[in-house]
Amino acid sequence: MTKIEMTEEIILAKKSKGLSWEDIAGKVGLSPVFLTSACLGTNSLKPKAATKLCKVLGLSGDVLATIQEYPMKTWDFGIPQDPFVYRFYEITGVYGETMKEIVQEKFGDGIMSAIDFSLDIDKEEDPKGDRVVITMNGKFLPYKSW
Amino acid sequence: MTKIEMTEEIILAKKSKGLSWEDIAGKVGLSPVFLTSACLGTNSLKPKAATKLCKVLGLSGDVLATIQEYPMKTWDFGIPQDPFVYRFYEITGVYGETMKEIVQEKFGDGIMSAIDFSLDIDKEEDPKGDRVVITMNGKFLPYKSW
Amino acid sequence: MTKIEMTEEIILAKKSKGLSWEDIAGKVGLSPVFLTSACLGTNSLKPKAATKLCKVLGLSGDVLATIQEYPMKTWDFGIPQDPFVYRFYEITGVYGETMKEIVQEKFGDGIMSAIDFSLDIDKEEDPKGDRVVITMNGKFLPYKSW
Amino acid sequence: MTKIEMTEEIILAKKSKGLSWEDIAGKVGLSPVFLTSACLGTNSLKPKAATKLCKVLGLSGDVLATIQEYPMKTWDFGIPQDPFVYRFYEITGVYGETMKEIVQEKFGDGIMSAIDFSLDIDKEEDPKGDRVVITMNGKFLPYKSW
Amino acid sequence: MTKIEMTEEIILAKKSKGLSWEDIAGKVGLSPVFLTSACLGTNSLKPKAATKLCKVLGLSGDVLATIQEYPMKTWDFGIPQDPFVYRFYEITGVYGETMKEIVQEKFGDGIMSAIDFSLDIDKEEDPKGDRVVITMNGKFLPYKSW
Amino acid sequence: MTKIEMTEEIILAKKSKGLSWEDIAGKVGLSPVFLTSACLGTNSLKPKAATKLCKVLGLSGDVLATIQEYPMKTWDFGIPQDPFVYRFYEITGVYGETMKEIVQEKFGDGIMSAIDFSLDIDKEEDPKGDRVVITMNGKFLPYKSW
Amino acid sequence: MTKIEMTEEIILAKKSKGLSWEDIAGKVGLSPVFLTSACLGTNSLKPKAATKLCKVLGLSGDVLATIQEYPMKTWDFGIPQDPFVYRFYEITGVYGETMKEIVQEKFGDGIMSAIDFSLDIDKEEDPKGDRVVITMNGKFLPYKSW
Amino acid sequence: MTKIEMTEEIILAKKSKGLSWEDIAGKVGLSPVFLTSACLGTNSLKPKAATKLCKVLGLSGDVLATIQEYPMKTWDFGIPQDPFVYRFYEITGVYGETMKEIVQEKFGDGIMSAIDFSLDIDKEEDPKGDRVVITMNGKFLPYKSW
Amino acid sequence: MTKIEMTEEIILAKKSKGLSWEDIAGKVGLSPVFLTSACLGTNSLKPKAATKLCKVLGLSGDVLATIQEYPMKTWDFGIPQDPFVYRFYEITGVYGETMKEIVQEKFGDGIMSAIDFSLDIDKEEDPKGDRVVITMNGKFLPYKSW
Amino acid sequence: MTKIEMTEEIILAKKSKGLSWEDIAGKVGLSPVFLTSACLGTNSLKPKAATKLCKVLGLSGDVLATIQEYPMKTWDFGIPQDPFVYRFYEITGVYGETMKEIVQEKFGDGIMSAIDFSLDIDKEEDPKGDRVVITMNGKFLPYKSW
Repeated sequence: MTKIEMTEEIILAKKSKGLSWEDIAGKVGLSPVFLTSACLGTNSLKPKAATKLCKVLGLSGDVLATIQEYPMKTWDFGIPQDPFVYRFYEITGVYGETMKEIVQEKFGDGIMSAIDFSLDIDKEEDPKGDRVVITMNGKFLPYKSW
Repeated sequence: MTKIEMTEEIILAKKSKGLSWEDIAGKVGLSPVFLTSACLGTNSLKPKAATKLCKVLGLSGDVLATIQEYPMKTWDFGIPQDPFVYRFYEITGVYGETMKEIVQEKFGDGIMSAIDFSLDIDKEEDPKGDRVVITMNGKFLPYKSW
Repeated sequence: MTKIEMTEEIILAKKSKGLSWEDIAGKVGLSPVFLTSACLGTNSLKPKAATKLCKVLGLSGDVLATIQEYPMKTWDFGIPQDPFVYRFYEITGVYGETMKEIVQEKFGDGIMSAIDFSLDIDKEEDPKGDRVVITMNGKFLPYKSW
Repeated sequence: MTKIEMTEEIILAKKSKGLSWEDIAGKVGLSPVFLTSACLGTNSLKPKAATKLCKVLGLSGDVLATIQEYPMKTWDFGIPQDPFVYRFYEITGVYGETMKEIVQEKFGDGIMSAIDFSLDIDKEEDPKGDRVVITMNGKFLPYKSW
Repeated sequence: MTKIEMTEEIILAKKSKGLSWEDIAGKVGLSPVFLTSACLGTNSLKPKAATKLCKVLGLSGDVLATIQEYPMKTWDFGIPQDPFVYRFYEITGVYGETMKEIVQEKFGDGIMSAIDFSLDIDKEEDPKGDRVVITMNGKFLPYKSW
Repeated sequence: MTKIEMTEEIILAKKSKGLSWEDIAGKVGLSPVFLTSACLGTNSLKPKAATKLCKVLGLSGDVLATIQEYPMKTWDFGIPQDPFVYRFYEITGVYGETMKEIVQEKFGDGIMSAIDFSLDIDKEEDPKGDRVVITMNGKFLPYKSW
Repeated sequence: MTKIEMTEEIILAKKSKGLSWEDIAGKVGLSPVFLTSACLGTNSLKPKAATKLCKVLGLSGDVLATIQEYPMKTWDFGIPQDPFVYRFYEITGVYGETMKEIVQEKFGDGIMSAIDFSLDIDKEEDPKGDRVVITMNGKFLPYKSW
Repeated sequence: MTKIEMTEEIILAKKSKGLSWEDIAGKVGLSPVFLTSACLGTNSLKPKAATKLCKVLGLSGDVLATIQEYPMKTWDFGIPQDPFVYRFYEITGVYGETMKEIVQEKFGDGIMSAIDFSLDIDKEEDPKGDRVVITMNGKFLPYKSW
Repeated sequence: MTKIEMTEEIILAKKSKGLSWEDIAGKVGLSPVFLTSACLGTNSLKPKAATKLCKVLGLSGDVLATIQEYPMKTWDFGIPQDPFVYRFYEITGVYGETMKEIVQEKFGDGIMSAIDFSLDIDKEEDPKGDRVVITMNGKFLPYKSW
Repeated sequence: MTKIEMTEEIILAKKSKGLSWEDIAGKVGLSPVFLTSACLGTNSLKPKAATKLCKVLGLSGDVLATIQEYPMKTWDFGIPQDPFVYRFYEITGVYGETMKEIVQEKFGDGIMSAIDFSLDIDKEEDPKGDRVVITMNGKFLPYKSW
C-alpha cells in the first residue's frame, strides 16, 4: 500500500464517519495539524497513535502499517500554485530576510528548526472578518564553529 | 534615493547608535517585524512613523521620502537558499496542504490573507534549547460566488 | 470521484443537452464565468447551486458531492502556452507595473484581491471586428502596519 | 538616452510638479493606463502626444525622442513576485481555461488580441471596502483556415 | 475521444490508404500545413472540411466531432529538443530582434499576428542540395494608443 | 570594442544620417535582414562589406574590426517576452511538429539548416490590414547512416 | 507500435540471442553507434538495413516498419543526470567556447553539423587504465551572407 | 587580476602579434585546445608553461600568476544558445544513451572521465565540404563495489 | 523486469524476512550503503554478490538478472525536496567552494571522483543527541595538461 | 565593507604572507574547513577568533567587524557547474535516497542537521592515486509528533 492509497482510504472512512480532522486528532491524542499531516502522508505515526487512528476510523492493518512508514516528503510545484499555499510562499519571500534579522538579533547566528518543530492553527473571531492564527514553534539551532 | 541605498543608510545609522530593531520599533511605536520590513524595503511607512524613525536614527529627508514610497516587492531566488529562509519554504511544502485542510474545515473555502496580515516573533526560553515562536495572523478571505 | 472525472461527466451531459455555459449559468442563477470555473474544477459550488446544476444536467449524486468540494487550484504550465491564455500572461508582464502605479495612486499601498473577486466577459459588436470585454472587480486590500 | 533613464527623468519631473498620472494623462489627452505605460517604457507615444507630455512636465528633447522609440518589452520575472502583479498571474492560472471556454462559446475559435487592446482602471466605492475595477477590451481574432 | 486518440486514428487510416498529407489536403481543399495541424490536434476544422476529411479517410463520426473541437494548444518542451523543431527556436533567438527592427521600420510599432496567419512549405530543387522554403504570412497588428 | 558598443555606435550614426536599415543594406549590397543582424551583433561581415558599411556610416576602424569578429550568439530569455519575438516562439510551438511532418514527407528524414540559411521580410499591402511576409530558405540536411 | 515498444522488443531479442551491439552492427553493415541509436529510437534505418536487422534478430514486421519511421528526438532532462551522460554536458560547458575559438580559427565563422555527422567509439588499452576514445566527424557549415 | 581580465589581456597581445592559438600552443609546447582553454580561463597552466606563454606574448607577471590559479569553471547558460556550442549539447541529448550502451558493452559499468581527459580538433579536407574531426580521449572509470 | 519492479520485490522480501539493510549487507559481504544503492536501483551488483543477495532474500532469477544490469542513474528533482536529502544539497551550496579551496591546497588542481568512491554511515552516540557520521572516500583526479 | 570585499582582502593578505588555509586555521585554533568558510563569507567568526585571524593576517578593523556579521548564505547556481562542486550534487542525487534508508534504519525518522554540523577533509595517501576523505558529522534530529 502506497501513502497515496492510504490517504484515499483514510479520507473515505473520515467522510463516511462524518468526522473532522479536529475530531479525529482529539480521539487519537495528537494536534490536528500533526495528525492531518500523517494522514496526508508527510509524517509518520508512532505505533500507539497509529493503532488508535485505525480504531477510530475502523481501518485495516494495511493503513496501520503504511502510516508508520517514514515518508519521502515531496510536493508538486517548486513555486506553489494553489492560492492558499502560495500565500505562505509569498510571506517567505516578503518577510524571510526580516525574520532572519529579528531572530538573529534575539538568538545569535542560527536558524529555526523545521524538524524539532510544531505548527498550530487557531480561529480568531472578529466582527470585521474572522482571522487565521498560525503559530510555529521551532527549536533555535545555533551555528557552531569547530 | 533607491530603497537599497535607504537600507544601507539606515543600517549604518543603526550600528553607530548601537540600537536593535526592537529598540527602534519601540521608539517608533510599531512592531519589530513591520518596522524592520519597512527598513529593509519591503513595506512602506506612514508619514508619522517615517518622521519618528528618521528622528530616532538622525536621518535625512531622503530616507524620510523613500521609506514612504510603495515598494515593488521582489526577492532573489525562486527557491530560497539561505538555510534560515529555506526552512520556511520547506514548511510550506511539507505542511501547505495540511494547513489548507485544517483552515478550510474551520472556516470554509478560502485563504489566509498575506496583506491584511501581521507576523510576530518571540523567544521561548527552554533548558533543552530556546525556541523561536512565530505567530502569523491573517484575515480569512472566503471565496465568493457571483 | 475526482474533479477531473466530474468535469468530464458535466461536459458530456452539457453536449447531449445542447446547452451553452451561459444557458446553464442562467438556470442555476450564477454568472457564466463562476459557474464554468466550478464545472472545470477550480471553484466549488454551495449546496443549493450544486443541486440546481445537477438537476439542469440530469446528473448523479457523485457530481453533486464533488462539485461542493474545495479544490486544490493548479495549472499545467508556469508560463502558459495556449495562445488564448498566454495573452493574459503577456498583459500581466507588459501592464503589471503600470496597473500597480495607477491603483496605488488611486487607493494607496495595497493590492486587488483575487479572492474577493469577480470576472465577467462580454461581447462588444464592432463592424471592424467584434471585441472581447473582460471586467475584473476585486476588493482593494490595503497593506496595514502593526 | 535609454528608456530607463527616460523613466527616471519623467518620475522626477512628475514629483517636483506634484502631478498624478491621471493629471498628466488628462493634459496629454490619453488614458492614464496608456500614458503611464509609455512613461514606464513599455509603449511608445506618437509625436503629438510626446510633445504635449514634455511640455506638461517641462522636459528636454532627449525624453521627446526616447518616448517615441518602439520599446523592447520585457519584464523581470517569469513568474511575478510582487503581490500586486502576482494576483494577475494567479487569475490567469485559475480562470484562463474558463475564459477560453466562455469566449470560444460566444465568438468561435480564436483569441482576444493583446495588441489591438485597451485597459482601464476604475475605483468603485463600497462601504465594505473600495473595489478595483479593471476593464480589458481586445479585438477578437478568429483562427482562420487556409 | 481526445485529440490524441483522433490523431492516432487519422494516421492509421492515412497509412492504410497510402496517402500523403499533401494528397489529403488537396482532396479536402486546404493547404497541407493547415490540414496537418488540424489532424495533429493544434487547429480545428470547419464542419464542411471535417466531413470531407472523414470521407477521404473513411473515418467515423467520433473523428468528425473531435476535429471540430477548439483545441487547447500546448507543446512538450519550453525549449524544443528535436533538431528539426529546435532550429526554428534558434532562428527566433538569433534573428528575433533583427526581424523586429526591420518590420517596425517598414510598418511602425506593432507585431505580426500568429492568429490571422498562414504558413506554407515548398521544396526548391538545387544541385548543391535541395532547399526548404517556408513562407509565413501574418497580418500586421499596430499598437494603438487609447 | 565589444559588439554592444559597436551596435550603439552604428545606431547613433544611422540616426544622425537619417538612413533606414534598407537604405544601408542597399548601399552595402546585402539583404536588409543580414546587414541588420550583423549590425546588431549576431552575424559577422566579410572585409569588403564591412569597409562599405563604415564608409556609408562614416565610422571608425574600431567598428570595422569589430563587425568582422565572429560573434558568440546569445539572447536574453529562454522563452522570449517581447510580443513581436514571442509570436515566433509560439509559431514554433504550434506548428513545429506539423512542419516536421510536411518537410519529412517531401524530403525524407532530416532538418532545415539554420546556418546555410537566409531570411527575407516583405510587406504585402492589403486593404483589410497590411501583412508581414517572412520567407525562410534553408538547405535541407538529410540524416545519414554510417 | 511505438519506438519505445520497438526498443523493448529489440533488446529482448538481443539478449536471447546473446549478441552485442557490435555483433549486430557488423552483421547489418553499419557502425555500432548508428545501429544502436536507431534501435534506441533516435535514428531511423533505411529499408535494406532494417530488413537485415530484423533477420539477424528474428523480429516481426512491426519492428521492420517502426524502425524506418523518422523519430521525434527528445530526451528526459534538460541537464542530464546519469554520470556517464552528464560528463558530455560538462565537456560542452568547459570546452565549448574553446572549441569554437579553435574551429573558427581553422575554418572561419560557422559550426560543425550535428546532422551530416558520425560518431565512433574505440577502446584504447592502457596499463594505467583503459581509455575511451570518441571521434566526432561533422561537416563544417559556414555562415553565409545574403 | 581576475581570469576575465587575464583573458582580455591575452587576446589583445595575441591580436597585436598576429598569432593563432595553434601558433602559440606550438611555441608553448601544449595542444591548441588545452592552451586555449587555459587562456580563456577554464584550465590552469603549470609554472613552466605559464612562463613560456608570457614570454611568447610579452605579458606581465599578473598574467603569469593568474593563469596558474585553479579556476572555478562555470558557463553562462544551462542550455547553451550559441549554435556552435548548442550542437554539442544536442549530440549529448541524441547520442548520450547510445554512447552509454556501447561503452558499457566494451568496458563494463562506468564512465569516461572528463578530468583525466584530452580533446583534439582536426580539419579533414573534403571536396564536398571540409569536416571538423573532434577526438575525445578519457580514462574509463569503472564503478566499484565496496 | 524494470529496476523499479526489482526494488519493490526486494523490499517486500526484506520486510517479510524482518532483515535490515545492514543484516543483508553483512550476509552478502558488501557495505550497507553500496548494497542498498544496488537494491534501490542506482548501482549494479557483480554476479557473485547478486547470487548471494537472491539466496538471502529467497528471490527469483528475474531479480538476479535485473540487479546485474547497469542502471541509468536519475533522480526526481533538480533541487531535492525531502528534508533529509535537501540538507546534502544545502551542504554542497554552503561548503562547496570551501571544500574546493581546501582540497586544491592539499592536492593541486583536480576533483574528488564520485565514481572511484565509497560512502559509509556511522552512528556516534552522544548524550546531547546521537550524531550521524558520513565518510566519503574518493580518488583525487588531477587535471592534466596535454 | 561587504563580505565579498572582506574575502578579497583576506585572500590578498594570505597570498602576501604565503600561508595556507591550514596554517591560518592552526594559528586561529579552528578547523581548516570552518575557518575557510568564514573567510569566504558563508560563516561568521566569534570575536576572539576574528581578532586572532586579523592579527595573523595583519588586517584592519573593517575585516574584524565584517567577519563577525551573520551572513546571508547563497550560491550562484541551482545546479552547480564547477566539476569539483558538481560531484557533491551528483552524490546527493545518486546516494540521497540510500542514505535516508540507512540513517532511518539506524536512528528512526529524522534528518542529519546541517547546522549542528562539522565537516573535515583529509588526504589518504595511496600508491594508486591519493584519496580525498570527507567526514561529515551532524546531529540526528528526530521528527517529533505533537
